[in-house]
Amino acid sequence: MNGDKNLIIEQITIVGGTHGNEYIGPFFIRKAEQTNIYQDNPIVVSTLLANPEAFTQARRFIDQDLNRSFSSDILTGNQDQHECQRAREISRHFSQGLSQNESGQHFIIDLHSTTANMGITLIVRNNEPLNLRTAAYVQKNMPETRILLSDMDHVQHQSLNSISRFGIVIEVGPLPNAVLRHDLFEATERVVDLVVKFLTLSKTRKEPKLPDEVTVFKFREKVPYPRDQEGELTAMVHKDLQDRDYRLLETSHPIFMTFQGGEIRYSSEPGYPVFINEAAYYLEDTAFIITDKVEASLK
Amino acid sequence: MNGDKNLIIEQITIVGGTHGNEYIGPFFIRKAEQTNIYQDNPIVVSTLLANPEAFTQARRFIDQDLNRSFSSDILTGNQDQHECQRAREISRHFSQGLSQNESGQHFIIDLHSTTANMGITLIVRNNEPLNLRTAAYVQKNMPETRILLSDMDHVQHQSLNSISRFGIVIEVGPLPNAVLRHDLFEATERVVDLVVKFLTLSKTRKEPKLPDEVTVFKFREKVPYPRDQEGELTAMVHKDLQDRDYRLLETSHPIFMTFQGGEIRYSSEPGYPVFINEAAYYLEDTAFIITDKVEASLK
Repeated sequence: MNGDKNLIIEQITIVGGTHGNEYIGPFFIRKAEQTNIYQDNPIVVSTLLANPEAFTQARRFIDQDLNRSFSSDILTGNQDQHECQRAREISRHFSQGLSQNESGQHFIIDLHSTTANMGITLIVRNNEPLNLRTAAYVQKNMPETRILLSDMDHVQHQSLNSISRFGIVIEVGPLPNAVLRHDLFEATERVVDLVVKFLTLSKTRKEPKLPDEVTVFKFREKVPYPRDQEGELTAMVHKDLQDRDYRLLETSHPIFMTFQGGEIRYSSEPGYPVFINEAAYYLEDTAFIITDKVEASLK
Repeated sequence: MNGDKNLIIEQITIVGGTHGNEYIGPFFIRKAEQTNIYQDNPIVVSTLLANPEAFTQARRFIDQDLNRSFSSDILTGNQDQHECQRAREISRHFSQGLSQNESGQHFIIDLHSTTANMGITLIVRNNEPLNLRTAAYVQKNMPETRILLSDMDHVQHQSLNSISRFGIVIEVGPLPNAVLRHDLFEATERVVDLVVKFLTLSKTRKEPKLPDEVTVFKFREKVPYPRDQEGELTAMVHKDLQDRDYRLLETSHPIFMTFQGGEIRYSSEPGYPVFINEAAYYLEDTAFIITDKVEASLK
């Protein structure tokens, strides 16, 4: 996996509040604006509160998930749902920023949190070497972080980060919605600092030495909740699976407990579950996501 | 503190979904209805989903907090907010139930959860011996539970449980909003079982022997968030206080970290904090509540 050595990141935007009830991002932005921490950085660092209305109401979204609203249909359409309008505004904001410096590229750091016990996760798309190298640099300095490779599926194509080829999602947890947690806030600050530092070093051709490869968790499949014919949940995530994100899930391990008192066991190939019992995924009918642990080359 | 020995509980109602984003109650009710677990109990046990509309939307409430909507103003008024109407419906439901058996009393078990690290907490009002004896019986069988004595303040007067003199609130955590957790669901089931068992034994004059006194945590005061002149948060709960519910908070211990990087320390008399960083209390401007640990007599 070779990086484009001529690539220059000219601007970094730190985005918070893509989901209005994930508090770390919006408060990070408020702090960054008040303290002006990146004002002298060689790469311009700006901030963007993605969905202020949802943040004010402490809701994930008003009409629909903003992080599923960056499809070309929506960006070129005139749908009047709050998040469709906001996606078009954000998209224009980014394209205007780029037009001022057409040779450079824009890197988006999108701040999220999860109710799952995932610690600090760096989500990158699987086809951008710079994104993976950035994540590897963070991990080198914060070994407790994990790298999640998302595929280019339908959902990913519609995320806020899909506006640019270059970016990373920082996902921290467990954190309840509409709650700010000091320790996870600090962890997010450390990651952002390392991302900015790496991109700045890269720009000045002083890219730090990285390992030859990194361990990544690669999306395999979503596991839905058991439901009855009316679509109502018939089971909950089993207590023996709860909080075991990134720990190997073996075939036949209990994954659900039905309200009738029966255990449902895992029947697929062993894998590494993530986003176990994430609040927002009840609506998307995802109890957890299975990933494969693989080595990715940074050469 | 002497109980009224002629007191007879004729009906128990298990209430869930007073807050629509606290999932344990609504799913407990669904399970109880599907499995008919209390159909042969000597005391009639029924269930009530308090705010179905808020549960469907996974929100705490639609227009206002239902658990602050049982004031006489609202119950005798005609305000058309969703929760005001619902409070009047629930109040009528309970008074009709009682009129069928005027000599007996109604006991309400209200199921809640919190994002704070409070484990299993039994909240009882401080002037009803039966409620405290019930909590003491649960604690005798589940020593990990804690008893919280709420005072008869404005808020308490407006709670759903204020419809009856007799009742208990079961509060479990930490649990993110709009998430179901198997271990806390089971704990809730155990507590409800013990409450029903105790009241049933009491009715048949076989009340089990209880200790002479129990340790309770008694509400002292609410500690608000630091805010600026616009009302915006200027600090978050300090990581050295986070998750330390029921652990002694000494004077001068850090309680907040400002976004400018300064620590704010506790300046009052030592006490036991609860509801630390509860999501719903940002709106009510309560960062945590200080309680006093005291012994309450059961004689």
